[in-house]
Amino acid sequence: MSVDSETDIPEVLYASLTDSVRRLVDATIRSRAELATITSAKAKIDAVADELSRSMMPGSFGIQSAADGQSRVWGNAVIGLRNALAPPLVVHHDPDGRVWADVTLGAAYEGPAGHVHGGICALILDHVLGATAHKPGRPAVTGTLSLRYEGGTRLGPVRAEAHIDRVEGVKTFAVGHLATPDGVTVRAEGVFFHPRTSPRDA
Amino acid sequence: MSVDSETDIPEVLYASLTDSVRRLVDATIRSRAELATITSAKAKIDAVADELSRSMMPGSFGIQSAADGQSRVWGNAVIGLRNALAPPLVVHHDPDGRVWADVTLGAAYEGPAGHVHGGICALILDHVLGATAHKPGRPAVTGTLSLRYEGGTRLGPVRAEAHIDRVEGVKTFAVGHLATPDGVTVRAEGVFFHPRTSPRDA
Repeated sequence: MSVDSETDIPEVLYASLTDSVRRLVDATIRSRAELATITSAKAKIDAVADELSRSMMPGSFGIQSAADGQSRVWGNAVIGLRNALAPPLVVHHDPDGRVWADVTLGAAYEGPAGHVHGGICALILDHVLGATAHKPGRPAVTGTLSLRYEGGTRLGPVRAEAHIDRVEGVKTFAVGHLATPDGVTVRAEGVFFHPRTSPRDA
Repeated sequence: MSVDSETDIPEVLYASLTDSVRRLVDATIRSRAELATITSAKAKIDAVADELSRSMMPGSFGIQSAADGQSRVWGNAVIGLRNALAPPLVVHHDPDGRVWADVTLGAAYEGPAGHVHGGICALILDHVLGATAHKPGRPAVTGTLSLRYEGGTRLGPVRAEAHIDRVEGVKTFAVGHLATPDGVTVRAEGVFFHPRTSPRDA
C-alpha cells in the first residue's frame, strides 16, 4: 500500500478525504436545505478546516518526491489526488502515443445551463494535449493553445483525447478533442515544450 | 438584504458557506495533519454532506430567476456564488467596454510548482473575454479561443482583462490577457456569439 513518506498516511485515505470534499462542493451548489442546516453546516466545516489547518505546508503542494522515486503532483488542478477541484482526470497513455481520459463532469463544472463551462473544456484539453509531450518528472508546458467549439458539451460523461501531430526541435505539436455521447464538441491544437530552467504553464 | 426566493436564505449565507468549503479545499491539499485527524475530518465532512444532500435540486444549478428579475448563475464554474471551485471571479464592466477581474489564485489552481495551471489561465480568460459580449440574461458562448503563453503565471494575485476588438454580425471578436506583478503572462483572442436556440459553451 502506497503511503506518504512524510506522514505515513495511506494514499487511499487522502483520495477518500478528497472525494468527500468533492461531494461537499456539489452539495454546496445543489442543496435545498433550510437556513438552520446551512448555518450549522458552515460551522462544522469551519471546525474541520481549523483542525486540518493546524499544520500546513506553506504555499502550495508543488511537486514532491515519494520514497519510490515517483514524483507526486497531488495538488494539480486537473489530476491532483488531494485537489477537490480536479475531477480528477486519470490520464491514459496508449503504446501508440495516444492519450485519453474519461471523466464525468457534474454541477461544479457548469457554464451554460446543463452544459460544461467552455473554460473547463479548455482546462481539460490543455492538460490532455500537454500530456502527449510529458516525460517522467518533466511535465511539458503550454506554448500556444487553440480551441474550436463545435457544440455544447453536456454535463455528464466526457472523453478527452489527443495525439502528437509532429515534433519540431523542442516543440511538440498536439491535436485532440472533447467528445460526449452526442459526438465531438470541442477541437483543440497546441504547442508544448519542456522548459530549460524553471517551470512555466501546463 | 438579498434572499433566495425559494428558501428565504440570505445570499450572504450561501457565499459564506462556499467560502468555508473553499478554505476546506485548500486545507485538504496542504494539511500535514496526522492520520487520526484526517480520518475524523473525512467522517465529519461526510456527515455534513449527508445533511446538505437530504434535499437537492436535480442535475445542476443552471440559470435561475430571482424575485428581483435578475438571473442567477450561482453554480457557474468561474463566477458561481455557491461554487467552491470558482475563485470566484468578480467581473467588472467599465463604461468604455473594458472588462476586468482581479483574483488571487492559491494552491488549488496549481499546475507547475508554484504556478497557475495553464488550463486555469484558459478558463479565466475564456470567461473574461466572453464577458465582453454578455448581455443581461443572454450570456455569450465561445466559438473559438486562442491562447499564447508568454511566461509562467505565479500563484497569487492575477488580473484578467479584455475588450472588444470588433463586432461582425452575430460575432464578437475579443482580445485580452492575464497579468501578474511580473507582467503579462498569457495573451488571448476569441470569437463569441449569442446562440439562437439552446445554450452552448461559455
